[in-house]
Amino acid sequence: MEIIIQRTVLEKNESAARENLAMFDRYGIHCINMLGGAGCGKTTVLETLLPKLTAEGRRCAVLEGDIATTRDAERIAALGVPVVQLLTEGGCHLTAAHVQRAMEHLSLDDLDLVFIENVGNPICPANFSLGEHRRISVLSVAEGDDKPLKYPLLFRSADLVLITKCDLLPYVRFNVERVCEEIRRLQPNCRIVAMDAREKNGVLELASWVQQECSSSLLVSN
Amino acid sequence: MEIIIQRTVLEKNESAARENLAMFDRYGIHCINMLGGAGCGKTTVLETLLPKLTAEGRRCAVLEGDIATTRDAERIAALGVPVVQLLTEGGCHLTAAHVQRAMEHLSLDDLDLVFIENVGNPICPANFSLGEHRRISVLSVAEGDDKPLKYPLLFRSADLVLITKCDLLPYVRFNVERVCEEIRRLQPNCRIVAMDAREKNGVLELASWVQQECSSSLLVSN
Repeated sequence: MEIIIQRTVLEKNESAARENLAMFDRYGIHCINMLGGAGCGKTTVLETLLPKLTAEGRRCAVLEGDIATTRDAERIAALGVPVVQLLTEGGCHLTAAHVQRAMEHLSLDDLDLVFIENVGNPICPANFSLGEHRRISVLSVAEGDDKPLKYPLLFRSADLVLITKCDLLPYVRFNVERVCEEIRRLQPNCRIVAMDAREKNGVLELASWVQQECSSSLLVSN
Repeated sequence: MEIIIQRTVLEKNESAARENLAMFDRYGIHCINMLGGAGCGKTTVLETLLPKLTAEGRRCAVLEGDIATTRDAERIAALGVPVVQLLTEGGCHLTAAHVQRAMEHLSLDDLDLVFIENVGNPICPANFSLGEHRRISVLSVAEGDDKPLKYPLLFRSADLVLITKCDLLPYVRFNVERVCEEIRRLQPNCRIVAMDAREKNGVLELASWVQQECSSSLLVSN
């Protein structure tokens, strides 16, 4: 009984996600969905990445998914980047319908790239496509190196995995090689980038991947 | 439509949770549900706390909630404490029915205290009562000090909040006072304990709270 209900919700979401993808392609917008647990550093990554992409001429916007507060959206707005805060009011993930409604608030002709920062939760968001072109999954070294196999869908569904807060490596038990090996066991060709957003390590590599993905997706849609 | 479905699931869970609570009380078992995000340190807290409680004569058991792997259960089993691993296979929280089935594997007459380590997720588990007497919510300092108001139910529903990984305080932006003030805004009388499980700071305070709660619950049920 419950399984059938769940399937219906997912099917409804898939259909809205296909509509979103078609809309992104129609406007030549590349969309990236960022997933990861609470406090893994998604917003900090965006704070470091967006000025770089903007300086390189990409017109970016961000959809911020949260249960409550506009804290993350305020941090993005402070960069001068258009942002829409999506409040799920208890909901543990964004849906394609959330994204549909949020995109009505943005001027689509003036955008190249939309980042969606999903609700801080390593589980549920991975089940819901939002119509994105690419997924970035984020794991902070403070969360521990046993996580890939404990949260397999988060890593199996990622196009790129960001290992964040690498400045904390000297103080935590986190074997980067073990984590990379486990991620590759789930997904042999996954791109993995180690970052330290405060020191801006890894940002160039991430920005260059985003630029490349952005260009390929525009080539395909044109 | 979706709201009605959700309500039915919650109602079904509430009824199973009431049965669990009655069972715990019948056997004089105190039950504590531990909630928090992935990698916030729930298992490490149990690894530090359980030997202390066992040494003080409490007969403990643990139910480990995870999506995949038996990693956490193996860590508890290594302490010689009876443990049941509950695999949700994608499910983002434990339900009272999970707990009901798990308790069949334990010898209830030989237990004083059952800890349930919920799935690593700061959102969904807070909506589902498991029939526990008390809730401990866990936040690691690496997750950031903006979290209480961003994940209000996790903190509003807690009897005690553990602030973990305090050994990382010199290396992260985390204002303990701000966090305590936000938690108390959500719940004025919440007990808050700062911990560093590796150095065993805060463990005595936590153990003494658990012992006290355990004794009061036995007094009520006898």
